[in-house]
This record gives sequence, structure tokens and C-alpha cells, in this order.
Amino acid sequence: MKTYKAYCIDLDGTVYRGKEPILETVQFIHHLQQHNIEPFFVTNNASQTADQVKAKLKGFGIEAKRSHIMTSAMAAAKYIVLHYPDVSVSMIGESGLREALVENGVKIVESSTDVFVMGIDRDITYEKLAQACLDIRKGAVFISTNSDRAFPSERGLLPGNGAFTTLVQTSTGVDPIFIGKPGGQMLEIIQQEHQFAKEDMVMIGDNYDTDILAGIWFGIDTIHVNSGVTSTEDVLSKPFPPTLTLDNLLEIL
Amino acid sequence: MKTYKAYCIDLDGTVYRGKEPILETVQFIHHLQQHNIEPFFVTNNASQTADQVKAKLKGFGIEAKRSHIMTSAMAAAKYIVLHYPDVSVSMIGESGLREALVENGVKIVESSTDVFVMGIDRDITYEKLAQACLDIRKGAVFISTNSDRAFPSERGLLPGNGAFTTLVQTSTGVDPIFIGKPGGQMLEIIQQEHQFAKEDMVMIGDNYDTDILAGIWFGIDTIHVNSGVTSTEDVLSKPFPPTLTLDNLLEIL
Repeated sequence: MKTYKAYCIDLDGTVYRGKEPILETVQFIHHLQQHNIEPFFVTNNASQTADQVKAKLKGFGIEAKRSHIMTSAMAAAKYIVLHYPDVSVSMIGESGLREALVENGVKIVESSTDVFVMGIDRDITYEKLAQACLDIRKGAVFISTNSDRAFPSERGLLPGNGAFTTLVQTSTGVDPIFIGKPGGQMLEIIQQEHQFAKEDMVMIGDNYDTDILAGIWFGIDTIHVNSGVTSTEDVLSKPFPPTLTLDNLLEIL
Repeated sequence: MKTYKAYCIDLDGTVYRGKEPILETVQFIHHLQQHNIEPFFVTNNASQTADQVKAKLKGFGIEAKRSHIMTSAMAAAKYIVLHYPDVSVSMIGESGLREALVENGVKIVESSTDVFVMGIDRDITYEKLAQACLDIRKGAVFISTNSDRAFPSERGLLPGNGAFTTLVQTSTGVDPIFIGKPGGQMLEIIQQEHQFAKEDMVMIGDNYDTDILAGIWFGIDTIHVNSGVTSTEDVLSKPFPPTLTLDNLLEIL
């Protein structure tokens, strides 16, 4: 089995399901760390800060390095700094997105005609959505942390940021720039900040349409695990299958 | 000029623009009433009750008969009673929709796997949208009062019920049944309750994609007025133009 320098591991459906750890993945991560390899954690979830992700992983017995946690909120903030330096940004989102913007020196305002960035917000209001539509109609660039239409909860599948993004897109007629997987932004930032060669990177996840496609489009190896959204059977029927399909990550130890 | 028994007149963009009456239409309505013709008012706006619409029109000097006011909320309630009698219904919406359901004897519950009906709700919350998605995923029929993506306000175009409907549609993958214009439900109810022949009915409005198409699809005459969303020029370029295009309704007195 080929080994890599950068194991980029999805969280929900790969490391845990909701509040339950996936024990094989936890064991796999411990194995990597025993061999002095610090894995990267790559999540579309923009609601949590890096410290909140770190604390959640610690609850599952995983000591993650804060600098190895990459959320779509952090990638969105870096994308804005790179492409729209020195602008004021309006936003819809939770603490993960707000902190990522502040940490990257982005000025957050109530209303901006420069850039509007959208992440999941469980305290959504009509007024927030109305202001977003007005900003975008006045010309603000429309950035969305991720296109996930739904996410699992103990109650069932709940509406995700992609569904809210569609609301604003439908109302304004303006298409968003999506940052999260299947986009390659998060993987590209990891590559650039740590100077990895692409052949030393692998993307590991349960969801073909986000995790595996992100890796394929970015041009790195991919490993699918059969612990979440997409079944191995479905993955193998795709025109572009992953490098490897596993039931769980213990199979490659 | 042909005369009709049922003048079905759109409200926003035809009788008024936001808080301003369109004086030619007000005068036209007075003229009809002086000739003992009570016009019908046909609106996609599901937020207001018939009494609220009546009061708004009174503020513009129009004495509308309550029985001649038809909102997409009232049509949605009648649609539910007709097609899904004796079920419990969950809803998102304002007083217009709630009152219409209650008036038609529909039982409203917090969560239903029978029918979910959606209208504009300026007090929208994540929890309301989450519960709607859960109900629909469990099999509730998905009904939406109207597909309007945006509506005008003094601040600009704000997100309409069609945009919120798209959110739920995107997240669940279930297509809604739309009740309002360009659907013919409201016109059909007017026809049936008052026993009009279709040749005695006309739909009058400013918006080609809702008002005029509703009339055309229902099979009655249509009059477009150049006071709102669609310009006369655009209307005349359509493959199915209205029966008549006017700058304002005084032209046919």
C-alpha cells in the first residue's frame, strides 16, 4: 500500500457520524500519528471554528493539530483575502465563518456591495436573507462556503447551506462561487501552506460527490470509505472511480 | 370594446405599486362599479387575509367585496380541502395562509406527513424550514402558494415565496405543487363559485409570466397593463401575446 505525506480526511461520515465516532478511522488516525504523520481534517462544515472542531475530535480520542484543520469557512476567508483584498464583506453564517473572516483580517459589515459570503446559519432570519439579496443585486460578489443540500442529524436530513444558497441564487438570478468540496480550494491551501507534491497527497472520504470528486478534480489520489453517504457499489459504477475503495481504513494498515 | 362579467384584476403592479395607488386603475374600478360590475381581485400574495386586502384597497379609495377577493392562500386552502379532505396539514406562512386554512376547516399541526403547505413568512426560522424538510422527506405532499422569486419593496427586490420554496425543493429533492398564477386555480374557483362562462371572464395584470399566462392557460381573455413588471414591448414579443395591451385601463372606458 502506497503511503502519503498528507492524509486529507473528511469529518462527517468518515471520522464520525453525528455524535458517534467511527472507530476504525480513529484507530487509523492513531496509527498515522504513531508514525509521526499528522493527518489533515477537511470539512465543508462552515459553522464551527477550528477550536470547536479540535474539541469535538478530542471527544472522540483524536488529538488534532489546529493548523491541520481546514474548514470551508477558513478556505472562503482565504479566498476573499486573495481575490478581493481590502474590501468590506457582508455575511450570513455562524461563529466558524465569522471567526475565519476576522482571523484573516476581513472587515465584516452589515451590508456590502463588494462581497457577500454565505454559510449555514441556524439563526437565519428573513431580514438576513433580504439584505443578502439586496447586496447581491447591487453587485456584491456572491460566495458560498459549500453546496451541501442537506446534512444528517438524529432527526433526519436537515437543510444545508447549499439549499439556502439556492434560495438567494433563485431570488437574485446570480450564481454563487462555491468554496467547499467538490471544489479544490481546501486541498490547494493545504498543498501551498505545507509545500506538498500532489503525488504525496490523498483525499479520504465517504461522499463521492464532495470528497472523492474534490480529490479527483484537484488531481490527487482518493480513498473512498463505505461509512457514510455513498455506497461502495455506487462509487464503483462512477465513470471516474476513486483510487481505492475500502469498507474501513483498517484495511490499509 | 368587449365587456365582461368577471374582471379579474391583479393587485401589485396593477392596482397599486407598494403603497401608491395606480390612479387609472382605481378610476377604471369605480367605472365598473358604477355600472354594477363588481371586479374580482386576484393576488399571488398569500401573506394577507381577505380583510387585510379589503382594508388596503379601501385606503386607495376602492370598496372591494370581500367575496370577490381571491388570494393564493385561499386557493391553496380550497385545493387542499378538495384533494386531501380530512388530513392534518403543517405550514409555513403568515396570517393570510393560516386564516385561509382555518376558514376552510383545515386542521393545522406542527408536523404532518400528509400535506405541507408553504407561503411567504417574514418570521421564517431554521427550525420551521427543517421541520418542513423532514415532513416532506417522510412523504407529505408539498404545496406552495406561489412561485414568485422576488417582490418589489421600497428597499428593492426582496426574496419571495418561490425562492423559499426552492430551498425546500433543493434540500428534499421533491417538487412542489404551485397554486398561484401562472396556475389557473384562482380563476377556476372564481368561475365555479360564480358560474361564469369563460368567454365572460378576463384576467388583467402587469406581469406576463404570472397574470397573463394564468389567463391564457385557463383559456380566458387577457389584458396587459404597462404599469409594472413586464413592458408592453416585451409582452408583444411573446409567442402568446395577451388579447389586449394597454398603457393603462382608462384607454378602454
